[in-house]
Amino acid sequence: MSKTKSAIISEPPQIAELAIDIAQKAKDASKILTKISSRSKNEALLSMSDGILSESGFITDENKRDLEDAKTKGLSQAFMDRLSLTPSRIKAMAEGLRQIASLQDPVGEVVKMWRRPNGLLVGKMRIPIGVIGIIYESRPNVTADASGLCIKAGNSVILRGGSESVRSNMAIGAALRDALNKNDLPEDAIQIVPVPDRTAVLELLKLEDYIDLIIPRGGEGLIRFVSENSRIPVLKHYKGVCHIFVDESADLEMAKSICMNAKVQRPGVCNAMETLLVHENIAKSFLPIISKELEDEGVEVRGCQRTRKIVPQAKEADEEDWHTEYLDLILSVKVVKDLDEAMSHIEKYGSMHTEAIITRDYRNAQLFLTNVNSSTVLVNASTRFSDGFELGLGAEIGISTSKLHAFGPMGVEELTTTKFIIYGDGQIRT
Amino acid sequence: MSKTKSAIISEPPQIAELAIDIAQKAKDASKILTKISSRSKNEALLSMSDGILSESGFITDENKRDLEDAKTKGLSQAFMDRLSLTPSRIKAMAEGLRQIASLQDPVGEVVKMWRRPNGLLVGKMRIPIGVIGIIYESRPNVTADASGLCIKAGNSVILRGGSESVRSNMAIGAALRDALNKNDLPEDAIQIVPVPDRTAVLELLKLEDYIDLIIPRGGEGLIRFVSENSRIPVLKHYKGVCHIFVDESADLEMAKSICMNAKVQRPGVCNAMETLLVHENIAKSFLPIISKELEDEGVEVRGCQRTRKIVPQAKEADEEDWHTEYLDLILSVKVVKDLDEAMSHIEKYGSMHTEAIITRDYRNAQLFLTNVNSSTVLVNASTRFSDGFELGLGAEIGISTSKLHAFGPMGVEELTTTKFIIYGDGQIRT
Repeated sequence: MSKTKSAIISEPPQIAELAIDIAQKAKDASKILTKISSRSKNEALLSMSDGILSESGFITDENKRDLEDAKTKGLSQAFMDRLSLTPSRIKAMAEGLRQIASLQDPVGEVVKMWRRPNGLLVGKMRIPIGVIGIIYESRPNVTADASGLCIKAGNSVILRGGSESVRSNMAIGAALRDALNKNDLPEDAIQIVPVPDRTAVLELLKLEDYIDLIIPRGGEGLIRFVSENSRIPVLKHYKGVCHIFVDESADLEMAKSICMNAKVQRPGVCNAMETLLVHENIAKSFLPIISKELEDEGVEVRGCQRTRKIVPQAKEADEEDWHTEYLDLILSVKVVKDLDEAMSHIEKYGSMHTEAIITRDYRNAQLFLTNVNSSTVLVNASTRFSDGFELGLGAEIGISTSKLHAFGPMGVEELTTTKFIIYGDGQIRT
Repeated sequence: MSKTKSAIISEPPQIAELAIDIAQKAKDASKILTKISSRSKNEALLSMSDGILSESGFITDENKRDLEDAKTKGLSQAFMDRLSLTPSRIKAMAEGLRQIASLQDPVGEVVKMWRRPNGLLVGKMRIPIGVIGIIYESRPNVTADASGLCIKAGNSVILRGGSESVRSNMAIGAALRDALNKNDLPEDAIQIVPVPDRTAVLELLKLEDYIDLIIPRGGEGLIRFVSENSRIPVLKHYKGVCHIFVDESADLEMAKSICMNAKVQRPGVCNAMETLLVHENIAKSFLPIISKELEDEGVEVRGCQRTRKIVPQAKEADEEDWHTEYLDLILSVKVVKDLDEAMSHIEKYGSMHTEAIITRDYRNAQLFLTNVNSSTVLVNASTRFSDGFELGLGAEIGISTSKLHAFGPMGVEELTTTKFIIYGDGQIRT
């Protein structure tokens, strides 16, 4: 693996040196940051917010240069839209930092504490992770959001955004670093990687002695690239093939409202519903209602045989459909015999992201919550709530679909780890 | 059992297939295991304990064959000792499984739960991780201990022990699988890899779609090999260069008792003290006392210049000594100006494993606990308490020195993850 890595690199020594330099500075800063009080961190976050606003002219100018280059390269309108920093988006970045300042500091929280028979008082205390690398794509607002969350939890952050947004990211980063500096916090706690190709990413992913965690944010290609090449632990976020099962006892009005919300409120995101499972005993009453609503909203329905008997205009769903995250106004629909068949379908085709049941049956609600081991499991609520902010985590650094360290939406708490603290009075081991 | 034995093969393609076959079986079993009640798991654990005892004849015979081979290969006496399964060690394995049965089941615990402004009730529930791979060296008792802990937490386990102990491990594994079977639990939840070379390990480390976590247990060479080659998250346990700082206000009798315990009670383990830091204001009174005791116990002292002025018989410690995990009756000793110098030394040379302060000063105790970010930090107690059983985790699957998922001693709780469970009554996102 390391062989193929070095084969890709064009000028290894300089980029490798640059990566180590960045990582070393971030690590040194993280050692200072871990001892900074909540009050100082919050004051710095408010300064960072102010800095984004006072530097908005420069940020906008640099963003325009990125946009011009992107246009010259013939990148898509959707891409240009994600890259673009409008005044309202700049305001939203600043507001986001203020909100992060208002969150409770996870660092120093003693999660639990117990006394041992020999009198030792043993506790688990939250501490920062250390240095966190964020590898992301075109949206420059991630630079501010991720920096804020990492600083809040006492971590240094190394940010490596998309090559097309490098000027925007550098401009935002300069404002943020300046704010840290003004508050006597180490500016090196925020590092923007200035190299616009993937060799720098490869070099960073080797630095397990400096960087404690990598969070990739972007498409599946980026995430696979990062996780296959990293020696550092990676919090992955693969696809969300989210299901809703409408049980036989469901309140059909509620089911309609939740299903429509889960499918059309924002179809392009990972917690939107992709597959609807309907209990056979209510299929005849529910499917005509929901398919009419879906049609009105321009959603294409791809159904199983039994669905198509009730909704003849539905296309035929094939095996591939059940695996697919459409991220679009398309929905696959299957009629199932019972809760067990619904759960088996989810186990076979799901991505362990988010699933919901709509039911009035107590036992089925509890069985679904207990036995479906996706990262978020809901009863009688929209899958769209699988989101750090909506769940009350304050903000979200990502959604993990791998089970280690964090599973599901991650907030500031997930940017910490715990150490054991032990109060003794002379105990020795016998 | 005979089937897996005959599967001992050497050609790579077959090994790749064998690894996938093992991993697939473990994954399928884990899906069943996640739904098994605590009572059934505990009954199976008690059966596993009984099975070890009733099969002790066969286990001993197979262990003897391993020992004969090891002797022929000229392996060291220390190695042979670790490999050997005496009647008391077999009893200890059985007793360990009974203890694991008596632990509280972490699965299903709702760690916390809160209500959102829109009425959603959001909780975090512990669930099994899935499939855990344990890569270990010569001690065959790991086969029983690790199986017990993984089953307790609802996980399948793939065990790959040292090549010299393959017969012992297969014999233990057969008894454990048989016990699962008798209790209507899937025997495939315990997989013993029968291939005696590292190619099988390499194949397993690629299977990120089947295996959720790898825990290597053994020397630093094994751990580096595993973590450099794994696509699966690894919980690493590198060296423990553990420090004790004897503060100026320390009760010197307590300091002596704790330091001796930390150094000599079991010098060959990772939580033994390797470096003693002594406040300059008590160096003249404390160092003569402790060095006399250390000498009586056969401990070689390697001191800094100031130490050697007080303890002339001490050898000179060089830069390398401060980094060294001796795992032996050797201790490096340094006189420091104050708490800050002690903490700086620990930050520079420590391995973030376990550190202790001996003090009567309230402020220094709290500063040390707060600012030293090792996995276990103690006040007035021996570093030897950095151990899952001693801390009250019930048993220990390993000690993590990397910060993700778990940091420090890991028990059954660390073999779980959490999912979000959400009770709604029709909420949609607006």
